[in-house]
Amino acid sequence: MRFVSFLQDGEQRIGCSLANGIVDLSKVDSDIPTDFALLIAQGPEALSQAHAAALTAGSDTYVDANDITYLPLITRPPKIICIGRNYAAHAIEGGVEPPSYPEIFYRGSSSLIGHNQPIIRPLCSDKLDYEAELVAIIGKRGRHISRENALDYIAGYSIFNDGTLRDYQRRSSQWTIGKNFDDTGAFGPEFVSADELPPGASGLRIQSRLNGRIMQDANTSDFIFPMDDLIAKLSECMTLEPGDVIVTGTPAGVGYARTPPVYMQEGDVCEVEIEGIGTLKNPILNEV
Amino acid sequence: MRFVSFLQDGEQRIGCSLANGIVDLSKVDSDIPTDFALLIAQGPEALSQAHAAALTAGSDTYVDANDITYLPLITRPPKIICIGRNYAAHAIEGGVEPPSYPEIFYRGSSSLIGHNQPIIRPLCSDKLDYEAELVAIIGKRGRHISRENALDYIAGYSIFNDGTLRDYQRRSSQWTIGKNFDDTGAFGPEFVSADELPPGASGLRIQSRLNGRIMQDANTSDFIFPMDDLIAKLSECMTLEPGDVIVTGTPAGVGYARTPPVYMQEGDVCEVEIEGIGTLKNPILNEV
Repeated sequence: MRFVSFLQDGEQRIGCSLANGIVDLSKVDSDIPTDFALLIAQGPEALSQAHAAALTAGSDTYVDANDITYLPLITRPPKIICIGRNYAAHAIEGGVEPPSYPEIFYRGSSSLIGHNQPIIRPLCSDKLDYEAELVAIIGKRGRHISRENALDYIAGYSIFNDGTLRDYQRRSSQWTIGKNFDDTGAFGPEFVSADELPPGASGLRIQSRLNGRIMQDANTSDFIFPMDDLIAKLSECMTLEPGDVIVTGTPAGVGYARTPPVYMQEGDVCEVEIEGIGTLKNPILNEV
Repeated sequence: MRFVSFLQDGEQRIGCSLANGIVDLSKVDSDIPTDFALLIAQGPEALSQAHAAALTAGSDTYVDANDITYLPLITRPPKIICIGRNYAAHAIEGGVEPPSYPEIFYRGSSSLIGHNQPIIRPLCSDKLDYEAELVAIIGKRGRHISRENALDYIAGYSIFNDGTLRDYQRRSSQWTIGKNFDDTGAFGPEFVSADELPPGASGLRIQSRLNGRIMQDANTSDFIFPMDDLIAKLSECMTLEPGDVIVTGTPAGVGYARTPPVYMQEGDVCEVEIEGIGTLKNPILNEV
């Protein structure tokens, strides 16, 4: 099952992506929430029912995928938990040893944008970098989740471009501010239910491309902390809630670590592709 | 004007604190939101109207302040932006120079608790420390806010105990995980509107007490980055939204920096008092 979030007449909508197009679920059944986090919170059966309803929906419920304004897949996640340095080669290109415990920081929802929406290079920095990342979306509430049961808590997966202002990331010891500029966290386009992917979304090729040039090219099996371990470690400390988003870290090949460094400029187009999930594409614009 | 958030029959409520007690606003006017973030988002006139309605409310709308279950003042802030090392003496006790740019990290709402609710020492750590902090609550949306206008964006102030697991804070370079354990971020009891305090809530004595012993004792005029500067610096990067919470950093005297270190134990009671705002009090319990 695949779902998207989009804007219609100024309001949030959930679409169900089918082989022949995207069904606007608000046109199928007005009892289905229009906020994807709320649908997830209703549990896997609600997702299946929404999907089933879309399969038999009339042609008047379809929207044009080329025409819709995508929203971040979840516009207001309870938590956006980001993992740093989860690929050994990326830690090494940054000049540090691979960590023995995950580097964790949060994003706020004001930093999120949807597929096709511009990533904004802010007035105050020209050090805008891309980061291709796999996203796990929590489907049910849990604390002290064992590794054995961890994957049961994941409703599905998506794609993130963890756009980072490298100078602000390093203005203090804490990276958070460099990761929280408005319109820098691209999230989408599609939610793919966990049953359509390998366990833990492992073994998937992950790639970023800037203006078509491959910048990062790795595999999610290269995680230092695999998905079940991340869920177990996070839930040792905190309750995971439906709609929480775990952004699982980026592989080697980011712009700042290149010689010479590569930063994103107005007019660039950045794509993040993950095998079996899709492609998240965003143009870059300057803040005005 | 002073407001609180509390739980009544399993539902969230806003109370207006008056000299003679707390008025349950849901009993005064069912059009007033029951989530304090929503009331704030309606603007300063909505706060004034709610306060005016409480002033003329009947005795049947009052609740017993000794009897209510306090919630975090805002249960789901859009962002909980925390500032590290904003008092020079605290930076120095931690062995580092005062920063030239704020150290910023986020909390998630799953870490919040209300006044009188227990701070939980988790199973996995015995390094639970207190941090007395002043909180600013954003009243209106803004980006690129100048220092001159910054204080106009603050609806009011409250108190925070930024409970921290010191070992988890230092398990990686990023502090976020040590600051996001469930039931460690105490927030309240009262919102105090900005007009009742000095500009930027500066010049207020701030104190923490553990079992009655004074552990931190400082003044909000000792900020390295004063309130208007914090608002300007944050909004250079991100949109501040109504209900966003800025937790402004803690003064010297935290437990880990003492010889010998002092960590909170089951049975302890921690209080944070800020002059003109009130006292936030929480017992400590072990996770079971």
